[in-house]
Order: sequence, then C-alpha cells, then structure tokens
Amino acid sequence: MSLTFESDDLHASLRDETLGSVSFLNEVMRRYPDAISFAPGAPHPTLYDDLDVPGSVNRFVEHLQTERGLSRTMALRALYEYGPSKGLINELVASALAEDVGLSVHPNAIVITVGAQEAMLLVLRALCRSPNDFLAVVEPCYVGMIGAARVLGVPVVPVEGGARGVDVGEIRRATARVRKAGGRTRALYVAPDFANPSGVIMDEVARRELLEAARAEDLVIIEDMAYGFTAPPAARIAPVKAFDGGDRVVSIGTFSKICMPGARVGFAVADQTVSRRFGPTTLLADEMALIKGMTTVNTSPICQALIGGLLLAEGGSLGARARATGARQRSRLSHLLDVLDRELHDSEMRGRVSWNRPDGGFFVRMQLLVEVDGALLEICARAYKVLWTPMRAFFVERGGERELRLSASYLDLSTIDEGVRRLKAFVSSLPR
Amino acid sequence: MSLTFESDDLHASLRDETLGSVSFLNEVMRRYPDAISFAPGAPHPTLYDDLDVPGSVNRFVEHLQTERGLSRTMALRALYEYGPSKGLINELVASALAEDVGLSVHPNAIVITVGAQEAMLLVLRALCRSPNDFLAVVEPCYVGMIGAARVLGVPVVPVEGGARGVDVGEIRRATARVRKAGGRTRALYVAPDFANPSGVIMDEVARRELLEAARAEDLVIIEDMAYGFTAPPAARIAPVKAFDGGDRVVSIGTFSKICMPGARVGFAVADQTVSRRFGPTTLLADEMALIKGMTTVNTSPICQALIGGLLLAEGGSLGARARATGARQRSRLSHLLDVLDRELHDSEMRGRVSWNRPDGGFFVRMQLLVEVDGALLEICARAYKVLWTPMRAFFVERGGERELRLSASYLDLSTIDEGVRRLKAFVSSLPR
Repeated sequence: MSLTFESDDLHASLRDETLGSVSFLNEVMRRYPDAISFAPGAPHPTLYDDLDVPGSVNRFVEHLQTERGLSRTMALRALYEYGPSKGLINELVASALAEDVGLSVHPNAIVITVGAQEAMLLVLRALCRSPNDFLAVVEPCYVGMIGAARVLGVPVVPVEGGARGVDVGEIRRATARVRKAGGRTRALYVAPDFANPSGVIMDEVARRELLEAARAEDLVIIEDMAYGFTAPPAARIAPVKAFDGGDRVVSIGTFSKICMPGARVGFAVADQTVSRRFGPTTLLADEMALIKGMTTVNTSPICQALIGGLLLAEGGSLGARARATGARQRSRLSHLLDVLDRELHDSEMRGRVSWNRPDGGFFVRMQLLVEVDGALLEICARAYKVLWTPMRAFFVERGGERELRLSASYLDLSTIDEGVRRLKAFVSSLPR
Repeated sequence: MSLTFESDDLHASLRDETLGSVSFLNEVMRRYPDAISFAPGAPHPTLYDDLDVPGSVNRFVEHLQTERGLSRTMALRALYEYGPSKGLINELVASALAEDVGLSVHPNAIVITVGAQEAMLLVLRALCRSPNDFLAVVEPCYVGMIGAARVLGVPVVPVEGGARGVDVGEIRRATARVRKAGGRTRALYVAPDFANPSGVIMDEVARRELLEAARAEDLVIIEDMAYGFTAPPAARIAPVKAFDGGDRVVSIGTFSKICMPGARVGFAVADQTVSRRFGPTTLLADEMALIKGMTTVNTSPICQALIGGLLLAEGGSLGARARATGARQRSRLSHLLDVLDRELHDSEMRGRVSWNRPDGGFFVRMQLLVEVDGALLEICARAYKVLWTPMRAFFVERGGERELRLSASYLDLSTIDEGVRRLKAFVSSLPR
C-alpha cells in the first residue's frame, strides 16, 4: 500500500530541521563510516567498562527483598511484571537528588521515564491542554524538546537566551507575542547547566531572575538537568528548582550521561499540585504517570533495577560517579578547545572561523562565514571525512544558519586531534 | 505551586473513563489488598519461573559478536549505548513472525517499541497528521488505543464489532459519520484474535470482509496481535496482514504476554510506502522511527537483547513458548468459565447475570442488571473483597453500562474458585 500525504504533513509539522536532521545525520554517518564524527552527544563508551549490569540488577533485587520482606522469586517478579507507571526506584532517585544536587523532593513527586525524552513529552502533555497553550524554549534549544512539542502539536515560541542563558526582556517579549496570537505561554524550557548546544551556564543571579520572570508571567519552568554533572567543582550551581520560588519548576534528569543510555531511564520532578474544577487535587507527577500509561505504560523495571543497583552501590548517590565522569568529559572538551586553538588560530584562519569556550557540557559552538546546512555537511563528509551537526536544527523558526555544533564527548583524544586537522582542511577550503 | 485547569482539561480530553479508570482501579486495588482481583490483564507470574534473564542477554551478546564480528566489549557497547530508533532485533522478530504466525516481512519494515503501547502511539501519529484525520476503533476497544488517541488529540469514532468482530455496514456508517463531520477516517483499529475485552475471534471470512471494507473506504487497518497465541491450535487463523490485501495492515505485537511485561518490548510491522509531495519515498516504519526519536529515542537495547536471546534460544521462534503459555492461559480461562457455570448458573441466579464463553484470550465479559461503575466496584471491593473492571472504559462514547470484565490470566485456579464464590455473593446482593 502506498500512502500519500500532502505537504502539510508530518514532516512539515515536525519540521525537517528538527527530526529530519537527526535521521539525515544518521544516514550520512552510515554512508561515511570512516568519517570522524563530532556529531553524537553520547557519553564516551569507556563509561561502561567498569559496569557490572547483572550485579547491579541483583543488588537492587536484594534491596527489594530486604526492604519489602520479599522472597527472591517475588522480588524478581516485581522486575518482570508490569510495574507502577510512576516508577519503582523513586525513593532512591529522591535520595540521590538530595545528596548529589541538593534538591529535596518527596518520592511521590517523581516520575521515572524512558529517558529524559519521555519526561519532556509527558510534562508537555500534562501542562499544555488546549491548542492555545504555548511552550516557550530558550534558544538554541535541544532538538528533543522541540520535537516532543511537534509530536503533540503544541505550538512553540522561541526566547533568545543570550550570553547569560536568560534574558528577562526576551521572555516578556515572547509571552506578549503569544498573547497577541490569542495564546497563553504555559511553560518555558531551559537547560541551565552548559546547555546543549549553547554551552551557557546560568549563574545564580540569572537563575533568580528566571524564577522572578516565571512568577511575573505565571509560567512553569521546565529545567533540563542533563549536563549539571560536567560543571567544574567550583562552578557547580544548585538546580533552579532548589532556589526560592522553585516550586514552579519541573526538573527533568537522565541517567544516560553518567550511567548508560541503553538503560533508557530518566525522570521528572513534578511536585506542583493540580486542582481541577471537578475531581480531587493531585500532583503534576500523578497526571504525568496517567499519561505515561498511554505512552509506554511503565519504564522497564529491569532497567530501573539496573540504575537502582548503581545508586545503591554508592549509598544512594551517584555523586562520585558523576564527579569522575564529569572530570573525564571536561578533559575531553578542554582537549578539543586546545586543539582548535592550536590548529585554527593562525593568521590564515583569522576571521574565517570562531567558536565559544564553555567550561562544561559536551559541546562547542562554531561559527563559519558560509551557510551551514545538510548539503555542506555532505560535502564535508565526502571530501574531508569529518562530521558535525548543523546548528539550525536547534532553532524553532530561524537561526544558526552559519553555525555548527561539535561534540567532544564520544571521541578519544587522538581522534579529536585528527578530527580537528580534517576540520581545518575543510574550513580552509571554504570561500572567504 | 498550584496549577488550576478548567473543565476542558486533560481529564476531559483523555476522558476519565479511559485513563481515570486505570488509576482508579489501581487505587482501589491498593486500598483493598486482600481483595481477589479479576482486573489485571497481566500474564500469570509463573511465566517467569523458567526465565534466565542474564543468560538470555548473554546469548544475544554472543550472537552480536558472531553476526557482526565484534569483540565482547564492542558487543556489550551496542547494548549500553543509544541504539537505532528502529530497533536492534528486527531480523530476529521478522524470522519469528514468519515462523510462528506465517507473516513474511522485511526487517526494515519493523519498528521495535516500548511495548505495544508505544507502537499504537507511533502508528497513530504517523497516520493521523491533520486535525481532521480520525481513528476508527472496533468496540469494545482496548483502553490503551483510545488513550493513545486522546494523548495525541486524534478524534476517535467507534465501530460496533458485533459477534463476528467486524460488521462492514458499521464500518461504512462510521466513515460516513466522519465525512459528515468534515473529517476523514484514516485507520481502523481491530484486535482480531480474542480481543480485549470482547473475546471475539474473527474468522477467515470476517478477515477478508474487513480487508475489502478497508479497501473500499481507503483505510489503514491497525491490527493488534496480542492474544493470537491463546487460540486453540485448531482455531488458529493467520493475521489479517497475511491475507490478500494485507498490505494495508499495520500489525502490532508485544512480547509482554509470552515473555515478560517488564522488558517493555513490542513492535509494529509497517511496510507501507509513504510518498510526500516533497522529499523521498520512505516506509511507514521509517516515519514511526522518526517520531520515536521524539518519544523515547530508542527501546532499551538491553531489554531488546533479553527478548532477542529468548528468540535465539528457540531457533528464532517463540512458537513453542507461545503454545505452552497459550495452553496454560486457556486452562485458566476454561477453569473460570467452568466455575462460573457451576456457581452462577442456578435458578436463584437465572436472569440476573450472564457472560460470554470465549475459546481464547484472557477475558470474560459479564452482564448484570444494574449500572456497573466505579461506585459499584468500590462497594464490591469493600463488602465482597473481589475486583473486576467496569466495561464502560472500553467504549468511546457510551456502552457497557451494565457490564464488567473478568480476567483469569493472573490468578491461580484455587484463587479463581474463591473469587467466583465472592462474585456470587456480590451478584446475589444486587437488586433484581
């Protein structure tokens, strides 16, 4: 059977630059397997070398036995059966949040999700209930958040983040624009710690300003905590949710970057109370769990047990693991920045290429003098055997046209060296 | 923070009878832990007693090493990293479909999903791209399908299934009703094998009529294969997709009922070609994978490895496992029917209660003379310590008001005996 869709189809609604770029990138990577790719935002694979997956799962099973007085058979059943939509390891996650990032929340306010991606989908659906409910996003913005909004048909309004990661005037302008269109801005998505892809970290003052603006505009803040662990120890800042007024923040996290992506375990902290004209008052986390029943039913209890076991191994904390992983990722990032300085900073290159110098996160943002799109990536892959991500995918309407994103997270140091040499050859070939 | 939503809120759009009933049921089960519950549609927990989870995962890892010439470290990385959105075990699933249900499909046309639930969400989003695209569902209908439509805001039109599981006249009436409302019926959801909750199996003639009606009305059929394995060997019928004209069928399956729900692995077969005014022709499975990138990114490769290992253990088939599990579930169902006959068929009960007698599936549909709702369930739980599911949750608009669903799948035979005795006491207490 052949299905034909009009131009106002899925791809238009999902916007090719958002979703299309992901599959296009995968396709290019597949066709040029010997290219060095600065594209993936995945953790370095050595992260898994010391992981004992069966051992971790088993540790959690023993914990269940002790905690609930279960036989081994009954504890295993809790892993193999359907589980509660809200999750199985909520208490362990709550204790890790308190221990590791100073966020004190009740386990009932946590929903365990299939990665941070599902958390984004669920919180969006729980908050944006009418076609006039808009999501605002600080730009450039993680494609997964824009994509979740596209999947649900939630309209998105961009907010320029600027050098501090937040600009109160820009927030005000965005909400005014939405009001003018007859809508209401329900939530604002922000990644305060070395955002993907901007690399900006919001300082304490910026976080307070953000909360003040959210209060003034009556917004929920959706805070993505993915890269907080990459901050240098001295630069670490508490999550926005931990500040005064943080009760209007929903915090989203993932275990993909410090444990493993393959577990597909993330979470949301959603302790807002929800009142309805009819029906009882609930927590936003309960509403998200209700919706989760219709997206994935529950997050695999086996995968939750794996993460739970890792948490138990370090006394209900991922602090030590996060610090070690963060340090390794920072050294990779600073190596990339050093090599860029060495290779691309000579007089021949001056004015043709520039980049930012973040202290954490996985990403470097690079500016060229030419249009950066899929066609240029294709040329670069074929002729120079090096890959990166066009920046335009991270903008809602337009932006990033002459920029690209480099990720240092997945590559060995020597591969970074060779990759930058190839990048130099590529940049040298571009018209001035 | 307290959020207030108007009455046109999530619960209205998701409809309390759909989602609310699930959480209400969980809540009632939590409050009456000593009640016998005929509610869960979960497989009997002895299903897991012979499963060797680490062994299964390991078998798949060894398969990856051989298949792709990988070291053990590299094969393990494929499980621990992000994986392809489309899946990691597509070839094994394709071979099992050919072997076990006679469905011959290319691995590229398969998407591995987080349970059948995510497959429903993805196929719906891939097919229904404008607000005027309707989903038709054969009623009574699995709540998860109605729920997925509610989450995405896809309008749903009911089609009365009747005793044969399909009524061509009803399909025509539903599509005409949609057209009159300015819409287009894009797809029809049907569970041809002992549907949850109707217990109806569509015979070969009915399957052909369904396909003919789908052709005439230009619908995609979404076929849910969940309960096919419970058919008595002589009554087994090929999936609708395997019949002539089956190219317009998307088949959805799950490993929850014959392997384990906790793996959260399901799949969709979507081999339709998709043409767009702009852009290349793709498979519907590719479009679903693209959307999956924005819902869960990918299905946990560890969980896929577990299922893959089980498939490998039996030579790329789940046939033997499905037959054994199916036989055990049938014996549980026929035991429930026998006990109902024995306990509820006396003269005192005549005319007050009736039920169907399906040959497969997990469920019995029971009719009473009174309104069956949450309030009645609450009374039954408190006073008679027995639980069931009100049937109204399975209807889009209205229906099932005096019916309930009993599941025999999760209970031991002796518990079924005691549960039916309690049901009898409950039914006896109802006004005539």
